[in-house]
Amino acid sequence: MASGEEDPDVVVVGAGLAGLAAARVLTAAGRSVAVLEARDRVGGRTLKHTFDDGVVVDLGGQWVGPAQDRILALIEELGIELYPSYAKGDSLMAFDGEIRRFDDYGLSVSTEAREELERSLAMLDEMVASVPLEEPWTATEALLWDRMTFETWIASLATPETKTFLRTLTSAVFAAEAWDISMLHFLWYIHAGGGLDPIIETEGGAQDSLISGGSASVSIALAERLGDVVRLDAPVREIVQSERGVETIADGHRFASKRVIVAVPPALAARIAYAPALPALRDQLTQKVPMGSVIKAVAVYDEPFWREEGLDGLALDPDGSVIEMHDGSPNDASVGIIVAFAEGRGGRSMSEATESERRTVFLQTFERFFGSRAANPRGYIEKDWSADPWSRGCYGGHLGAGVWTEFGPALRRPCGRIHWAGTETAERWSGYMDGAVRSGERAANEVLNAD
Amino acid sequence: MASGEEDPDVVVVGAGLAGLAAARVLTAAGRSVAVLEARDRVGGRTLKHTFDDGVVVDLGGQWVGPAQDRILALIEELGIELYPSYAKGDSLMAFDGEIRRFDDYGLSVSTEAREELERSLAMLDEMVASVPLEEPWTATEALLWDRMTFETWIASLATPETKTFLRTLTSAVFAAEAWDISMLHFLWYIHAGGGLDPIIETEGGAQDSLISGGSASVSIALAERLGDVVRLDAPVREIVQSERGVETIADGHRFASKRVIVAVPPALAARIAYAPALPALRDQLTQKVPMGSVIKAVAVYDEPFWREEGLDGLALDPDGSVIEMHDGSPNDASVGIIVAFAEGRGGRSMSEATESERRTVFLQTFERFFGSRAANPRGYIEKDWSADPWSRGCYGGHLGAGVWTEFGPALRRPCGRIHWAGTETAERWSGYMDGAVRSGERAANEVLNAD
Repeated sequence: MASGEEDPDVVVVGAGLAGLAAARVLTAAGRSVAVLEARDRVGGRTLKHTFDDGVVVDLGGQWVGPAQDRILALIEELGIELYPSYAKGDSLMAFDGEIRRFDDYGLSVSTEAREELERSLAMLDEMVASVPLEEPWTATEALLWDRMTFETWIASLATPETKTFLRTLTSAVFAAEAWDISMLHFLWYIHAGGGLDPIIETEGGAQDSLISGGSASVSIALAERLGDVVRLDAPVREIVQSERGVETIADGHRFASKRVIVAVPPALAARIAYAPALPALRDQLTQKVPMGSVIKAVAVYDEPFWREEGLDGLALDPDGSVIEMHDGSPNDASVGIIVAFAEGRGGRSMSEATESERRTVFLQTFERFFGSRAANPRGYIEKDWSADPWSRGCYGGHLGAGVWTEFGPALRRPCGRIHWAGTETAERWSGYMDGAVRSGERAANEVLNAD
Repeated sequence: MASGEEDPDVVVVGAGLAGLAAARVLTAAGRSVAVLEARDRVGGRTLKHTFDDGVVVDLGGQWVGPAQDRILALIEELGIELYPSYAKGDSLMAFDGEIRRFDDYGLSVSTEAREELERSLAMLDEMVASVPLEEPWTATEALLWDRMTFETWIASLATPETKTFLRTLTSAVFAAEAWDISMLHFLWYIHAGGGLDPIIETEGGAQDSLISGGSASVSIALAERLGDVVRLDAPVREIVQSERGVETIADGHRFASKRVIVAVPPALAARIAYAPALPALRDQLTQKVPMGSVIKAVAVYDEPFWREEGLDGLALDPDGSVIEMHDGSPNDASVGIIVAFAEGRGGRSMSEATESERRTVFLQTFERFFGSRAANPRGYIEKDWSADPWSRGCYGGHLGAGVWTEFGPALRRPCGRIHWAGTETAERWSGYMDGAVRSGERAANEVLNAD
């Protein structure tokens, strides 16, 4: 323990939304906490960047939607403002090299493809609804769906348009490919977000609104309220449990407490040393929930010029490295902002390129979809989340074939005095900011009930 | 650095066969080394146990075969003796609850199944031979084979007997299930062992011979020759690279050196902190090579009584938790030894049971196959390798769908002054003791060539 520090009731590892939400519940219940954060900032996978001209952009998690109760409640409580995503006009999609303009994807493809797409989405939504959120491994078809990848299901479809739609959806939602995840994981994750429409849609869905001043404002405001119990630059290296309590050893800090909440993704929780060693199933689970791969780029223009052409700024390039682009402009449209993502395969291959090569690929893609004005933004920044040592990927961890049914029970089950939080452990909106908040609140309540 | 310690030319992380083989090559070339081992023993995934009555058994890697040049050369050089595995008589296999006695599996099933099995094995061997050992992601069909699991291929077969054979083979060889690995990984791994027959067979194959005094004797003898450069109880926590060299920080030690060889599996290499952070692709690879799941049990009897009944001691229980049993008796048959493995699913579910429950499952299985004498061994011991904090699974790490083609190049590629060894990085006999030795020798030569 650094001099002058008092041992808290509970140590929280990680000052992302999950850890901060947990600390908020605990302090409200009168418990003392210490929140240990490896980075020199709070917010985890949310991160804002302020350009020299004062324009603020999100380099991490960005959108919220109406069914995301817990993050919305926090936003309201903290007095942070939301504004609606821009969604007027047509979207764009490249298909076999040709850029198509569309209002409704289903209406832009052949009748055969549209029919198969509608049929597939209806089938998927039915399967989605049958997967229990708390224990997906108890679904009637759990073994069948878990031992196949989502790609295997996609490959059984007939039309290229339907396959492309579902593969692109997977890349966009998971920052991973359809062969990286089990069918069961796909279905569970979609169910956790309320179904296909709520996950996919902008208006009324998970991309409904943006957060004024950037989504990291939520974590920053939470941390300000918590005050100096949040310690930055304090990566946790070791957690030692005994019958009497638990000791948490971080760079520059050493705390004894009754309980610990580890609020980082499973792949990073694995990098803490535990004494005694964690159970076999828990440890092997952490070897099997890799993070998605995504590079986010943000380009700032004098105005959202695509709107003049009746475009909403959404563009999809299924065969490219940069799979999706969105309009992320501020509410007053004082500047135009394109946010874009190289996800899954795209993120992986582009992480091997130089920054300058990556910038060229992003801007050439923007130009291809939105014309020559897109080639010369007044501001540009990118973030490779797989290269960030304290995230090592985004948006979240995913479960491949066989993992839910053989390792699932170890995801949330406490190990002695250690409780697990992080959006990966959420039963609703896993992988989203809302899931992070829920997971922290759930873990905090576990601790309160365990005392 | 502990007082009195001199900085070596090269630090080796891990004193398993890979690390010790690397250190041997380096010292022979006149380089000074320090080998840092987390455990209080050398040998990694090889481990001997001596019962009170002096009987020595292997709790880890055990068999060697004629094509395993490098481990055989070491064994000969160190003056360690081999003896042939017992392989006279019939084997046993449970099929739908009925135990069948067989000499040749193919001859014990229906004509239809035998024909499909022969056809499938021939097809697999042809595909196996087409996968390049150094860069499997360059195989002509690499994308197709990598984006499907081996289970998807198996599921396309017609006869239950052929499916069971291939699923059991996968569990036995990988300690993982067919849905855990990509088709490409299956093919590459079998190719690295010379083909299906060399991998499967006892006589002339990978299970040909046993090592007198236990396989850990090889590591122990290597470590004795290296002397006090091998430091035990020294888990490496951090590796810091600069332009001038690299610093390795372990419990109780701190060494500066020109280069480091990390000779532990990818999943454990991920748990070392690196500064600067490793490239995105390398880090994400380490999130995607989970260890297999295996519990090994060894039972000692007054004599190998099953031999009297014309049995060779090999027994397979595809639907059970304990999938395979073998005769592991010493050469003079002074006692009878059954070694058994709960692999993949079996290992995972049994790791959640108590030791006493596990012992009951193992012994009841032995009794079911070998009769009532098998229920009461004079000695019994087991080892859950997934629970071992410095292995976290065995026999090795495996690659699931999509990993070889998207992350493969990062498996062996050095990161600055850090070189990667361990049987997972071997191009021949990956996953075996021979692969461990080869990988250490290859990494040592990389270092010698880089100086």
